[in-house]
Amino acid sequence: MNDKIMNLAIIGAGRIAHVHAAAAAADPRIHLQSVADIVPEAAQRLAREYGAASVEVDAVFADPGIDAVLIASSTATHAEFLERAAKAGKAILCEKPIALDIARTKAAVDVVNAHPVTCALGFNRRHDAQFAALKHGLAHGRIGTLETLTIISRDPAPPPVEYLKVSGGLFFDMMIHDFDTARWLLDEPIRSVSAAGAVLIDDEIGNVGDVDTAMVTLITESGRLCHIQNSRRTAFGYDQRIEAFGSAGMLQAVNETETRLRATTADGESVEPPKHFFLERYSAAYASELGDLYDAWISGGQPMATHIDGYEALRLAAAAAQSLADNRTVALSEIG
Amino acid sequence: MNDKIMNLAIIGAGRIAHVHAAAAAADPRIHLQSVADIVPEAAQRLAREYGAASVEVDAVFADPGIDAVLIASSTATHAEFLERAAKAGKAILCEKPIALDIARTKAAVDVVNAHPVTCALGFNRRHDAQFAALKHGLAHGRIGTLETLTIISRDPAPPPVEYLKVSGGLFFDMMIHDFDTARWLLDEPIRSVSAAGAVLIDDEIGNVGDVDTAMVTLITESGRLCHIQNSRRTAFGYDQRIEAFGSAGMLQAVNETETRLRATTADGESVEPPKHFFLERYSAAYASELGDLYDAWISGGQPMATHIDGYEALRLAAAAAQSLADNRTVALSEIG
Amino acid sequence: MNDKIMNLAIIGAGRIAHVHAAAAAADPRIHLQSVADIVPEAAQRLAREYGAASVEVDAVFADPGIDAVLIASSTATHAEFLERAAKAGKAILCEKPIALDIARTKAAVDVVNAHPVTCALGFNRRHDAQFAALKHGLAHGRIGTLETLTIISRDPAPPPVEYLKVSGGLFFDMMIHDFDTARWLLDEPIRSVSAAGAVLIDDEIGNVGDVDTAMVTLITESGRLCHIQNSRRTAFGYDQRIEAFGSAGMLQAVNETETRLRATTADGESVEPPKHFFLERYSAAYASELGDLYDAWISGGQPMATHIDGYEALRLAAAAAQSLADNRTVALSEIG
Amino acid sequence: MNDKIMNLAIIGAGRIAHVHAAAAAADPRIHLQSVADIVPEAAQRLAREYGAASVEVDAVFADPGIDAVLIASSTATHAEFLERAAKAGKAILCEKPIALDIARTKAAVDVVNAHPVTCALGFNRRHDAQFAALKHGLAHGRIGTLETLTIISRDPAPPPVEYLKVSGGLFFDMMIHDFDTARWLLDEPIRSVSAAGAVLIDDEIGNVGDVDTAMVTLITESGRLCHIQNSRRTAFGYDQRIEAFGSAGMLQAVNETETRLRATTADGESVEPPKHFFLERYSAAYASELGDLYDAWISGGQPMATHIDGYEALRLAAAAAQSLADNRTVALSEIG
Repeated sequence: MNDKIMNLAIIGAGRIAHVHAAAAAADPRIHLQSVADIVPEAAQRLAREYGAASVEVDAVFADPGIDAVLIASSTATHAEFLERAAKAGKAILCEKPIALDIARTKAAVDVVNAHPVTCALGFNRRHDAQFAALKHGLAHGRIGTLETLTIISRDPAPPPVEYLKVSGGLFFDMMIHDFDTARWLLDEPIRSVSAAGAVLIDDEIGNVGDVDTAMVTLITESGRLCHIQNSRRTAFGYDQRIEAFGSAGMLQAVNETETRLRATTADGESVEPPKHFFLERYSAAYASELGDLYDAWISGGQPMATHIDGYEALRLAAAAAQSLADNRTVALSEIG
Repeated sequence: MNDKIMNLAIIGAGRIAHVHAAAAAADPRIHLQSVADIVPEAAQRLAREYGAASVEVDAVFADPGIDAVLIASSTATHAEFLERAAKAGKAILCEKPIALDIARTKAAVDVVNAHPVTCALGFNRRHDAQFAALKHGLAHGRIGTLETLTIISRDPAPPPVEYLKVSGGLFFDMMIHDFDTARWLLDEPIRSVSAAGAVLIDDEIGNVGDVDTAMVTLITESGRLCHIQNSRRTAFGYDQRIEAFGSAGMLQAVNETETRLRATTADGESVEPPKHFFLERYSAAYASELGDLYDAWISGGQPMATHIDGYEALRLAAAAAQSLADNRTVALSEIG
Repeated sequence: MNDKIMNLAIIGAGRIAHVHAAAAAADPRIHLQSVADIVPEAAQRLAREYGAASVEVDAVFADPGIDAVLIASSTATHAEFLERAAKAGKAILCEKPIALDIARTKAAVDVVNAHPVTCALGFNRRHDAQFAALKHGLAHGRIGTLETLTIISRDPAPPPVEYLKVSGGLFFDMMIHDFDTARWLLDEPIRSVSAAGAVLIDDEIGNVGDVDTAMVTLITESGRLCHIQNSRRTAFGYDQRIEAFGSAGMLQAVNETETRLRATTADGESVEPPKHFFLERYSAAYASELGDLYDAWISGGQPMATHIDGYEALRLAAAAAQSLADNRTVALSEIG
Repeated sequence: MNDKIMNLAIIGAGRIAHVHAAAAAADPRIHLQSVADIVPEAAQRLAREYGAASVEVDAVFADPGIDAVLIASSTATHAEFLERAAKAGKAILCEKPIALDIARTKAAVDVVNAHPVTCALGFNRRHDAQFAALKHGLAHGRIGTLETLTIISRDPAPPPVEYLKVSGGLFFDMMIHDFDTARWLLDEPIRSVSAAGAVLIDDEIGNVGDVDTAMVTLITESGRLCHIQNSRRTAFGYDQRIEAFGSAGMLQAVNETETRLRATTADGESVEPPKHFFLERYSAAYASELGDLYDAWISGGQPMATHIDGYEALRLAAAAAQSLADNRTVALSEIG
């Protein structure tokens, strides 16, 4: 076991920052040193809970004792903090997305590329045990050559419409995770994107120019096909499944439940609904993200997902939006 | 129980004709009277097996004692026999497709419409117990309002390339079933079709201008989305599943296996692969097709699927082919 | 295909006789020639439905044109009809039990043994597809050497108390099937029997000296252990499962459902309850029983279960009753 | 959140002590202060890993700063340490069993009862999420009135024969857990015990007077029946399942797997084997044991399982051994 401790600062003190702070506290290799937030009281509250210091954002980048920065502030600040952290030579774990704008994202990616830092992007699916097992099976040839990939991804309930207005919309805010998952599992460049979308759940979502239900088809350079399906509302909670079909068989990652208790009554046999939402389903994945950052920081290797993966997923989102607008298949080469 | 016997003639004496003949023999309400085939020996063999007469095709239409005609001859003859049967006033069960050509199909449909006959089309999925249970659940509001439909349909192995040349290709020969299933379950007009396809299994399939793997998105008039996925080769047999997602939940029709025996060894827990192909999976469905024709013939009602359903499924296939060629979403109004 | 027709007479015209008659009608190798019942109207009704003759019982045994006799009359008549059928040289399918009394059963078995007839006993579990697959897996070494067997067998609801009074009680009337299943799967002599029982469902059952819930342990000569569990009432229908555990793994035969439709709502994921009772679960098994008799009759081989199996199962029932009465393990050698 | 810290000493430094130490380290309410072991090096190693002190056993009981003692030493020392901890006024978590001898156990229980301490016994099944969900379902009437309970409990491989000689045998060493589970779920006094056992796995086990495979039937005062089945060797790992059957239905706690990935190939659909053994399956349960001790210590309430539960489970083990020796049902009143 490597005994080197990674001193961590978290920027942002909202819900997801709390999740990361708990993960840091449980990992003996990581020391949560400081927390910064534009609302000082929020930073103080989180810092106090884990025995960390509450500091200004500038102090995070200025402090040579801080090895790593976790960016969990509001989306609009990600790109700037990412650049500052890279320039300050910190290891970075940045929540997705870097930015909603392709050009802004590209600029930030260029800055990071120009500095020899470890940079991880918070695509939690890559750290999920179910999906990792599927990836492992693909890599070990359990289904021969992958041919089609089907990703079902449905949230329990739509976010507030006010949030949707600034979120970039379903492709940028929600399906971005699935685009990254698709890239990770397909493991080759995407050639084109075709999208369909509808407003079936709440007209207010349509009123702000978004869709609440969508299907996207990706085609890779070698011709593999990938289907992604999103819905903003799921009666039974969080629906997160992947099906990989190949020349020798099929792998399916299915939903998790808290327990596996089966009840059989006059109504039939039943099990409980899936874990409710991302905090429940991906709780272990968040812990794994920090551990992965640590490993990459120690070894000098690459984290599971990087800023470049963030940029590439964003290009797919932009292509899907374009496809939906134009009613046509969009070549990824048209984007970014 | 209605005691009226329906005297049936089968045109065609191939594999599927044998399946229908066995179903007729097991149904006390149906009497298999005669069999006709362009290969008289084939007709004689089938007729002998079930105590029926072997006759010329013309005799089928001329014989007033024949109540119903089952058309199971080669695809190229379907439209003509359908028209002749309608003109002769027979109840009809016609194997799909009526024709591979939209105009020819339309002409045949017009002829049938002009005659007051019972006309059923052999879309076996509508008679499958799993899919019928899903349809029943939808109709009874078990998942509220249907929003998305996902149809996975994969064959165990591609047909010979020689067959593919005359089959019309994947959309017309294979996905035609799924188009009908989609129409049946979505239960409203389709607005547009978007297709993606690839040759991933056998280059020979590409050489004859076809694809072996495909994904299609349908959008209904009200905005519902439907994904159909086809592959010509499945390592584990026949993959026939449907997932319906709605405002209140999800229904899933899964594959059937011969038995449910579970074996747990050092390798894990396993069950046997799905039933191998359509003759195994849809054996009960074929029997149900004939029973449904009988019921409609007796009651004067509509069979589960009619010649018009055959025509509409064909339009979707043509739209999918157009979409694949043009790399764009095709409005169904452009077709037929 | 062997074209020889087996002419069958059925003695008895109750519910189970109807099931067998339908199976005979569907099998082209079997001709249901006559039906006899102490209530002539019942025999006439069943005979008419399948185009058979309604006859006196004596006529069945006297008619040289009858090849096989299916005994589905009331339990009290089984032994006598079995003996008469054997003496008349008929192939026999006798519903279980031969008699409730060990000595009477032994006498009947001796008579059958003295005549060179094919004699099958109606233990339907041996003909069930799930259990047959488990047996096949055992025979093919899928779990190495069998060590323990667990049989769960629960009825949907108790029979009327009036019936219980004459049925011989739970061990003789219900668990008799499971004793036979155990013998069939363990495939070696039983050494001892230990029983526990309780009245948990209906005090009236206790009032007639019976139990409604029971657990029995069988030990084979080589030391294998078998657990049988019965309940007379199951909220979700018919519970018929077997678990075989061996040196290399485990095989489990689970309940059947009509369809496999999965519904997922806010309450969780569910499938329908098991098939309701034996007529639903074992419908195919009844057809298989007659086919098995035919095969044995043609080949001169042994049916899946014989009169001797009926006798041996009865000994186990008697041993269980003795064990319950004495609160001790009973050696099977003490019985019969 | 209660901020009071519980200072803990662990006696014993073997494998299970390490598990408990890790759980203590992860719980902010618990401070692992010291470790004692008859092998000082082992104590030092464990203490160093968690920043605790390595001390003599006597020091544990003498130190007023220690609030709680976790007894994870060898079985032969449990009773003595339990008594000393009680006399010293410590909260106690004692690994099972207290002793293998009924009289010795009774004496220790009497000592604990004479002192007002919180005393928990390490029956990990009560802390397992699957079993707890089943218990919760029973308590909330999901299956009406419980009637039968079936506990399947199989280890991956037998312990060394040297261990078996001093372990007390299968009933005392392995089934003791299942006896406690049965008592917990049946929730009423046991009336009688009937046991069957066999040597099917390894003759060496028989040579030391033990069995490797066993079935036990418990009957409660009200007549409920419980089946417990043990095997010392399981090809697929650790088999830990419970089935509760009641007037309104059935609850089943099934095995856990690391992931739920499904692979479908030409061989069928499979999932991975269950978690390998107790350290994997019950890892969360061990953490819960310490948390439960903390809660009881703070609140003055009862832990999930106490020394009295340890004594009662031992009586069932003794009754089972007696039953096996005598080939008869043993009334629990005969024991202890």
